[in-house]
Amino acid sequence: MTSNRQWVIEARPLGRELLLSDFRLEAVRVPEVADGQVLIKTLYLSFDPAQKSWMENIASYMKPIEIGDVMVGTGAGRVIESRHPGLAPGDIVRGLIGWREYVAADGASLEKIPPGTSVAASLSLLGSTGKTAYFGLLNVGKPKAGDTLVISGAAGATGSVVGQIGKIAGCRVIGLAGGPEKCAWLTEELGFDGAIDYKAEKVRRGLKALCPDGIDIFYDNVGGEILNDALARINVGARVVICGGISRYNADPRDPEQMPPGPRNYFNVVFTGATIQGFLLNHYEREYPIAEARLAAWAQAGKIKYKDDVLQGFERAPEALMRLFAGKNFGKQLLKVAEG
Amino acid sequence: MTSNRQWVIEARPLGRELLLSDFRLEAVRVPEVADGQVLIKTLYLSFDPAQKSWMENIASYMKPIEIGDVMVGTGAGRVIESRHPGLAPGDIVRGLIGWREYVAADGASLEKIPPGTSVAASLSLLGSTGKTAYFGLLNVGKPKAGDTLVISGAAGATGSVVGQIGKIAGCRVIGLAGGPEKCAWLTEELGFDGAIDYKAEKVRRGLKALCPDGIDIFYDNVGGEILNDALARINVGARVVICGGISRYNADPRDPEQMPPGPRNYFNVVFTGATIQGFLLNHYEREYPIAEARLAAWAQAGKIKYKDDVLQGFERAPEALMRLFAGKNFGKQLLKVAEG
Repeated sequence: MTSNRQWVIEARPLGRELLLSDFRLEAVRVPEVADGQVLIKTLYLSFDPAQKSWMENIASYMKPIEIGDVMVGTGAGRVIESRHPGLAPGDIVRGLIGWREYVAADGASLEKIPPGTSVAASLSLLGSTGKTAYFGLLNVGKPKAGDTLVISGAAGATGSVVGQIGKIAGCRVIGLAGGPEKCAWLTEELGFDGAIDYKAEKVRRGLKALCPDGIDIFYDNVGGEILNDALARINVGARVVICGGISRYNADPRDPEQMPPGPRNYFNVVFTGATIQGFLLNHYEREYPIAEARLAAWAQAGKIKYKDDVLQGFERAPEALMRLFAGKNFGKQLLKVAEG
Repeated sequence: MTSNRQWVIEARPLGRELLLSDFRLEAVRVPEVADGQVLIKTLYLSFDPAQKSWMENIASYMKPIEIGDVMVGTGAGRVIESRHPGLAPGDIVRGLIGWREYVAADGASLEKIPPGTSVAASLSLLGSTGKTAYFGLLNVGKPKAGDTLVISGAAGATGSVVGQIGKIAGCRVIGLAGGPEKCAWLTEELGFDGAIDYKAEKVRRGLKALCPDGIDIFYDNVGGEILNDALARINVGARVVICGGISRYNADPRDPEQMPPGPRNYFNVVFTGATIQGFLLNHYEREYPIAEARLAAWAQAGKIKYKDDVLQGFERAPEALMRLFAGKNFGKQLLKVAEG
C-alpha cells in the first residue's frame, strides 16, 4: 500500500511568529475517491504570507480552519484516478489542495494548468502570485505611460512582476528592497529605473531623491513606516494599492495595542483626491485566462523575468512557509514534493 | 469716505488650537478697481475647518499665504462698481473673497449666485458644503439602494446633507454625532435610520448593534478612533470616503510624533477589496450646475433640510471660525457682514 502523509495545524500563531511546532506531520491512508472526485499525487506546493492569516482564521474571505485540520495551501499535482468527467489520469491540475502527498478533491475545484506551462510556473508567474501583480497593478493601480510607480517588497515574487508590467505600461519604476543584491537585480536584470535599499538608507530620503515629481502609484507589500513614507509623496489622483503588509503579520488583530499603527499620512488623500485600495483576486476570475496568456507571452518575449525559489521534500513544508517571514526566499517560494 | 476693514493673519496655528490672537483687524482704504475687476461689498462669509490648514500652508492645493496677508475665505457680496464686462452693479456674487468688508476682485474669479437662491443658501447647501456632500457621496461613495451608509460628523453641515442624499438614493443611513440633541435631529427631523451619540456610547459597540450586516459606505468627517472603528466593520467592496478629519486639525504635520496615529484597521481593505478615497471638489467643477440644481430641487421638495448657524458682525469672523473646532455650530457656520 502507498504511504501518504499530511501536515495538520497544531497551534494558531496569533500575535507571534510562526513556529515549526505549529504544525504536525501525520501518516494517513491514501484517501478513497468519491463520485465527482479525483485522486491527485501532489507535485508542488506554493507558499504565500496570507497562509499565516488563514491559520489564524482572520481572513474573512476564507472558510475557517480548526486545530487538527490539514494545513490549507495551493499546489499542483497529477491525477492518478478520476471519477470526474472533465479530468483523466495523467492530467496536471492546480488548486487549494492542502499540504498532503495524496488528495481526494472535487474535480470541480481543480483546474488543468495552462497548456505549454511548467508545473512550477503554473504556481508562480501564472499562479496567484503573477495574477496578483497583473490585476493589482493594471486594474487597481491603473498605470498611465509617464506615471511614477513605486513598489515595496519589489524583489518579491509579486513585486518584481509588478515592476516589469509597469515598465511595459510605460511607467518610471522605483523598487524598495532589502540589501544590495536584490537592489542590483531590480535595476540591472529587471530594468527598474531605480532601487532603494531600505536596510541601508532612509526610505523617505530615497523617495525624495528618486521621485522628485512625486508618486502616482504606490504598490505596497510591506505596510508600516514604508507605507507612511510613500503617502507623504503621493500626487493628485494617486493610486495606492494595498497588496500585503509583511510588517503586520506577527501582530494579533484581536488586540489593538499589539497592532502596528496605521499610516499617519493617510489624510493626504484629502489634499490629493488619492485612492487607497485593496482587492480580492477572485473578483477578476473571469479575466484569468487573458492575464495568464499575457503573462506567458511577456515571459516568452523576455519582457518579464521571474525567479522560483524551490525547496525539496514534503517534510520541509513548514520551513518553506517560514522562509517568507524571514525574508529568506529570493523569488517565488515553492516546494517540490514529488517528480512529475 | 467709506470705511473698510480686513482681518489679516498674525500667527500660524500649527500644532495647536486657533487663538483670537492669530488674527489682527486692520482699517484700510476701500480699494481701487483695476480693469477686469469689480468692487464688492461683502454680505456673508462662510467658514470651513480646512481654513485652519490654509493658515498653516499645509493644503497643497491652495496658494501659500504669508503672515500679514488677508485671511483667505469664501463669501458672497454685492457688486458696487464693475470694470468687468460680465458683471454689473447690484449683482450678487460669491467666491474666495477673503475676510474684508470691501474687495476689489477679478471678475473672472467670481460667480453670480444661482437664480432664486438666498445669499446664505448659496454659501451653504448650494456652496462648497452641499456640493462636497453631493460629489463625495454620489461620485466617491457610489451608493446603491440597500447599502448601509454610516456618516461621522453627521449633524455637521456636510454630514447632514450626505445622510439625506443617502436616503434619496435608497440607503440605510446611520449617523454619528455628539449629544442627544443632534442625534434626535438626525433621526426625527432628517429621517436617518439610526444615530450613535459618540459622547455617550462606544462607537464600536453602536456600529455593531446598528450595522449587523456591516458597512458599505463610510463617509468620514472626523478621523481618529472613529475611522478605525468603522474600518473594523467594512464589507467586501466598501467605499470609505475621507472628507475631513476634525480630530487632526490641531496636530503639526511637520512633527510625526504629534500626528495622531493612522487607522490600524486600514489593512481590512486587503480582506475586502475596499477603497479609501479622498477627493478634490474642484475636479467636479463642470458638474456644479447639475449638483446645485438637484440640491435646490430636493430642498424645495422637502427632501433635504439644512440649518445655517449665522453670527452677525464682521468683527466676529475669527470667533466664527473657532466655533467649528469647538463643535459649537449647529448647521453651516456663516457670518452676516452687511445687509444685502
